[in-house]
Amino acid sequence: MLNSYIIKVDCPDRKGLVYDVSMVLYENDANIITNREFVDLENRRFFFRAEINGDISVSCIEEKLSKKLGYEANIYLSQRKRKNIVIMCTKEAHALGDILIKHYSNELNANILAILSNYEILSSLVEKFDIPYHFIPNEGLSRAEHEEKILHVLKNYDINYIVLAKYMRILTPEFVKNYPNKIINIHHSFLPAFIGANPYKQAYNRGVKIIGATAHMVNDNLDEGPIISQDIIRVDHTYSWRDMQKAGKNVEKTVLSNALTLALEDKVFINGNKTIIF
Amino acid sequence: MLNSYIIKVDCPDRKGLVYDVSMVLYENDANIITNREFVDLENRRFFFRAEINGDISVSCIEEKLSKKLGYEANIYLSQRKRKNIVIMCTKEAHALGDILIKHYSNELNANILAILSNYEILSSLVEKFDIPYHFIPNEGLSRAEHEEKILHVLKNYDINYIVLAKYMRILTPEFVKNYPNKIINIHHSFLPAFIGANPYKQAYNRGVKIIGATAHMVNDNLDEGPIISQDIIRVDHTYSWRDMQKAGKNVEKTVLSNALTLALEDKVFINGNKTIIF
Amino acid sequence: MLNSYIIKVDCPDRKGLVYDVSMVLYENDANIITNREFVDLENRRFFFRAEINGDISVSCIEEKLSKKLGYEANIYLSQRKRKNIVIMCTKEAHALGDILIKHYSNELNANILAILSNYEILSSLVEKFDIPYHFIPNEGLSRAEHEEKILHVLKNYDINYIVLAKYMRILTPEFVKNYPNKIINIHHSFLPAFIGANPYKQAYNRGVKIIGATAHMVNDNLDEGPIISQDIIRVDHTYSWRDMQKAGKNVEKTVLSNALTLALEDKVFINGNKTIIF
Amino acid sequence: MLNSYIIKVDCPDRKGLVYDVSMVLYENDANIITNREFVDLENRRFFFRAEINGDISVSCIEEKLSKKLGYEANIYLSQRKRKNIVIMCTKEAHALGDILIKHYSNELNANILAILSNYEILSSLVEKFDIPYHFIPNEGLSRAEHEEKILHVLKNYDINYIVLAKYMRILTPEFVKNYPNKIINIHHSFLPAFIGANPYKQAYNRGVKIIGATAHMVNDNLDEGPIISQDIIRVDHTYSWRDMQKAGKNVEKTVLSNALTLALEDKVFINGNKTIIF
Repeated sequence: MLNSYIIKVDCPDRKGLVYDVSMVLYENDANIITNREFVDLENRRFFFRAEINGDISVSCIEEKLSKKLGYEANIYLSQRKRKNIVIMCTKEAHALGDILIKHYSNELNANILAILSNYEILSSLVEKFDIPYHFIPNEGLSRAEHEEKILHVLKNYDINYIVLAKYMRILTPEFVKNYPNKIINIHHSFLPAFIGANPYKQAYNRGVKIIGATAHMVNDNLDEGPIISQDIIRVDHTYSWRDMQKAGKNVEKTVLSNALTLALEDKVFINGNKTIIF
Repeated sequence: MLNSYIIKVDCPDRKGLVYDVSMVLYENDANIITNREFVDLENRRFFFRAEINGDISVSCIEEKLSKKLGYEANIYLSQRKRKNIVIMCTKEAHALGDILIKHYSNELNANILAILSNYEILSSLVEKFDIPYHFIPNEGLSRAEHEEKILHVLKNYDINYIVLAKYMRILTPEFVKNYPNKIINIHHSFLPAFIGANPYKQAYNRGVKIIGATAHMVNDNLDEGPIISQDIIRVDHTYSWRDMQKAGKNVEKTVLSNALTLALEDKVFINGNKTIIF
Repeated sequence: MLNSYIIKVDCPDRKGLVYDVSMVLYENDANIITNREFVDLENRRFFFRAEINGDISVSCIEEKLSKKLGYEANIYLSQRKRKNIVIMCTKEAHALGDILIKHYSNELNANILAILSNYEILSSLVEKFDIPYHFIPNEGLSRAEHEEKILHVLKNYDINYIVLAKYMRILTPEFVKNYPNKIINIHHSFLPAFIGANPYKQAYNRGVKIIGATAHMVNDNLDEGPIISQDIIRVDHTYSWRDMQKAGKNVEKTVLSNALTLALEDKVFINGNKTIIF
Repeated sequence: MLNSYIIKVDCPDRKGLVYDVSMVLYENDANIITNREFVDLENRRFFFRAEINGDISVSCIEEKLSKKLGYEANIYLSQRKRKNIVIMCTKEAHALGDILIKHYSNELNANILAILSNYEILSSLVEKFDIPYHFIPNEGLSRAEHEEKILHVLKNYDINYIVLAKYMRILTPEFVKNYPNKIINIHHSFLPAFIGANPYKQAYNRGVKIIGATAHMVNDNLDEGPIISQDIIRVDHTYSWRDMQKAGKNVEKTVLSNALTLALEDKVFINGNKTIIF
């Protein structure tokens, strides 16, 4: 069985880029199993992802690509392997629980290094799965002080992605800049509808017939990061806002789980405030 | 074959309303085929719809119900029959064309009395189907003057519903009050996301993964009337905003057509700024 | 706060049934919050469900309804309360795990009395949640012997519903007749497509673009009981059958969970080989 | 503005194919705007599609690719342009009407050369759009005789695709072999469920909660060709089979229209009995 790798490249567009990339891969014994390529014509940027196998030298390919594509290129080449994640949550168990069950049954290509929460309540669930639970209450702390405590814990871990599984506090830009394009949040509405607090109450008051959930990368502005995944369910006049909230949990956890899977499989590119999903 | 009727009742909630309504129906030889009932507990209002058959006297049942339910009740009892609609449009053919084809193949339980448009372009389509086309340009007219001209034409028709099949001008509250809860609009976004102009461009710029359409009753405020029906389709990074617009046409016409069917079957109640759909 | 009840009635159709039922409820101090009624015109059968509240005597209402509706009527009247369920599973954790997490976070209106399995593997998951796990291997046993062992365990519990959460063995009609309309199964296809073994492999070989899952009541014939709930997800040519299987787990668990919720809320009627869902 | 082309290649898989194809494109002044590539590992076959632009020589690129890829390769390179279609129908207007409206509003990248039908009824619709209508009744004819008459008409047209828009007769393998992978059919069920006659009646009798439609290429066996597109809608116990049929028309026409669009954009590969959709 040959080793399996993912390669992702994005750089300013110019003619011949597929040719250049595929030449480097070919000449360095990498076989392309599947690839997708997209040019953002508006911003003149090229995106390429391939699954390759072969007996290759990662550093050699990286170096040659770098030379060909120039300093503005992002080049990512990595063996397919389990990534490391940390999950942050508050009080609700559904999104966290879904990830824990997937992890238990080996369906998640990730190691869960730790769970962090500003509440203690979910520790009883996390303990069952033998994963460290860091209870970091925010009571009596300024936002900056609280985030400093969180960062202090996070620094101990080698993290690929932080998953906000219904973590109900806003993260400051100062916090986020420590993990650029590494924090995945689930927002409990079909963004950009119902930004902000209690979207289910907003949806109930508006009388919508469909509610949804949105997983996105976290950037500086709340609920405004690049969208990775969205899905919806139908509701009707018999739903109170609490019924919507309850029904919404199924779609929240599914959307978060889908977005996490896409990230773990290196299928997500960030393109300004949007994503490209291959 | 017995005659078939629809009865709709809404009134302030109190105990025994289903009993009272069903007693009047029973004692006046009406047989209930199917019924739904819902109490809006927040606003203490009762909603009831039934399909009934029998050899009944409409006026007699209405009178008895009115006596039992009081002056705050809305009572609607009507034989099932084709309703009369007028369609307003601007330049796009898809939503109008869908209704015309349904009408042609006798799938729409309605008579199309006329088409109105502020552009001439769709007359070539409408003519094919032998339906009057009123071209009422708005050029050089104030909004009030234009709407007066439209009303002048509409007054000639006995209208159950006005269907805005991508009519791209805002109607004033003064116009709307002539047809309360009788104007159905299709908005080309998943409301309340992307209110206002060019929602597909907004959706493109936000990088959403799902776009939608919303059919709603028109009230005083643009894009804020009670929602009747919504649906969505998936998009991805390869869609330009024009691709979204093109793909969205399928969902626009389907959602409008569904909402119209619900209205023609007397399945829609207006409850403040929401609908109840039985 | 008044007590809350569910009433379900089905009986041969005749004129005046809504009137009769609502009269008994009214005269016995029950207030209808919401109700739905449906007549199966093909089979001339009447179905009625209402959520009621009030200070009522259950036995008194049952008796009076029974007198009015005759011996062919099914009458169910019960206070809203947690029901008792037993879950049967084999090796896969996703559907079981989803129910366990919902139970943990008090989102499931049910007590999980026990888990039964023909494999030992999931005991490590179930133990975490302090629920009895009965490992009943089928090795070396005839189907009848194995089912007898299961029944022996089940007889100790007062069961409202048995949930087959990917229990991968066929139950005999002899077993099923002990729990008529009380066994809910999740089948990993969009029935009636891909009946039988390995539906994902069948779906892959057929090249479908959508896969699904079906929750149904179990009757005598495998995969042929009344369907409660179905849902689908989209797949494409890049999915191997194992990818479909993996993606399908999300829809399997959601559909099973939806069907279970409907059953726990007494919203499911069995009508021959179909369901009526209010 | 540069000329825009589509290139599609499929051939036995081997190492370096993306490199080879992109080299030929690069060296012949073709710029890749977007491409997708997929290897069917089971059957060891390579599929590649790109949208390219540039001032190119089609024959030159075809020749060089052919030399590089060998005689087992299928190579398609064509300027983006309107394709020619013929539509066959029987009595129902919805799928045909949808295509006619799209054609009228210039949303379909195709010329409709003619409509053929074994019934006269839809001629009144087609006439409105000034498209030739060939009424070829099958009464009193053997299937072979009828198909011969159809072929006689079809031979006058230069056809890219034949669209069966609810053409309710089975085509023989002898007929189909004249238009291999050029006939697109809409089947009114979620294949492979409900193969054969009256799928809505079958769906009603089975009590399904979801119905669907399937567009596929026609091959020798009825309802068994490669699936291009599928979609579904939800139904419930209140639907008679005629209600399902009526509701199903919306999804039938949308699925057929989506499949046709994919074909017109050269996004469909046939891979044995499956499709690859880029």
